[in-house]
Amino acid sequence: MNKWLTSLRTNTPQEGFELAIKLSQMGVKYTQPSEEVRKKLRPKYSRDADSLIFASQVIAINFQTVAAANNYWK
Amino acid sequence: MNKWLTSLRTNTPQEGFELAIKLSQMGVKYTQPSEEVRKKLRPKYSRDADSLIFASQVIAINFQTVAAANNYWK
Amino acid sequence: MNKWLTSLRTNTPQEGFELAIKLSQMGVKYTQPSEEVRKKLRPKYSRDADSLIFASQVIAINFQTVAAANNYWK
Amino acid sequence: MNKWLTSLRTNTPQEGFELAIKLSQMGVKYTQPSEEVRKKLRPKYSRDADSLIFASQVIAINFQTVAAANNYWK
Amino acid sequence: MNKWLTSLRTNTPQEGFELAIKLSQMGVKYTQPSEEVRKKLRPKYSRDADSLIFASQVIAINFQTVAAANNYWK
Amino acid sequence: MNKWLTSLRTNTPQEGFELAIKLSQMGVKYTQPSEEVRKKLRPKYSRDADSLIFASQVIAINFQTVAAANNYWK
Repeated sequence: MNKWLTSLRTNTPQEGFELAIKLSQMGVKYTQPSEEVRKKLRPKYSRDADSLIFASQVIAINFQTVAAANNYWK
Repeated sequence: MNKWLTSLRTNTPQEGFELAIKLSQMGVKYTQPSEEVRKKLRPKYSRDADSLIFASQVIAINFQTVAAANNYWK
Repeated sequence: MNKWLTSLRTNTPQEGFELAIKLSQMGVKYTQPSEEVRKKLRPKYSRDADSLIFASQVIAINFQTVAAANNYWK
Repeated sequence: MNKWLTSLRTNTPQEGFELAIKLSQMGVKYTQPSEEVRKKLRPKYSRDADSLIFASQVIAINFQTVAAANNYWK
Repeated sequence: MNKWLTSLRTNTPQEGFELAIKLSQMGVKYTQPSEEVRKKLRPKYSRDADSLIFASQVIAINFQTVAAANNYWK
Repeated sequence: MNKWLTSLRTNTPQEGFELAIKLSQMGVKYTQPSEEVRKKLRPKYSRDADSLIFASQVIAINFQTVAAANNYWK
């Protein structure tokens, strides 16, 4: 895998949230490297409420990590 | 995405809880940007007990982050 | 929403656990504000073992937050 | 509810784990207070592998709290 | 239950991971004490991808606790 | 099990994320040691959106541990 993560520091909480989204997506990408397969799955899970809630949960967990890494942008 | 998150600090725990709800919703919104699709899903998941419990779980995880960022409003 | 959460501090661990239950319920209430709908869901999820375990999990996550806020009542 | 939780401190990690089990059970009990209903559910979930794994997860989350409260029994 | 957990300290991260597995199994064992029943469940959940992922999640949560107890073996 | 985990320290956040993936896989491997069985499961779960999200969640939890062990690579 190419270099995609060099730091957990971000300038703002929003950028931190967006990094948490990136981390969540990368967890999927490492598990299913085929972009073709991932694209096929998208229409289904992005229209399934539970899948969306589960995705939001992974983002929340990663956001905890990113927020701690940034000392909560205090 | 427009600016929507500039700080994790809130004046009260309740505002912090409401920010945790916002973060949970934004996790869904980034994953499914179409408001039309999200609105269609709402009637179903908001009447499904497990979906509501899962949603409450995401809020709980985000509330951990917000509470820590506010030093638990001590 | 009216004021319902002014502090995460409680006098005892048990009161803290009960606050965690309140937080878990409020996560549901914000997502589904209709008391009528929530009452209809209750008979089903309260007789479903997995739903009860999931509910207990949300309480556990919120209890982590409340316990930290109270320095674990040390 | 009668007094059932006065402290998160335990003498040993094992007692702490058993307290985590108690907390997990109480999360269920507050949600479904009827002992009769809970007893009826037991044969099913205690023979369902996923339910058992979910139960173990709630225990793990509560054990994090109890362990932190005891400074990990260091 | 006999004594099975006297300390969260381990010599290495790998022993800590293995202790996390033990904790995860004990969460199941306390919930379903019958070894006979647990053995019957094994063929099914150990061949179900989601069950395996859920089991790995419980281990991950317990590993957080064990790692913190060992100051991350720094 | 052979030695596979001697330290939680990594040089970069990305290596830490990859270690979190390794930990998540090892949680599965300890639960289902047969490589043959695990390989059979792969085509299914790697094409199931929810399974991929669940896998990403386990990685996120383990990444919290690895990030803390590395003081968030600050």
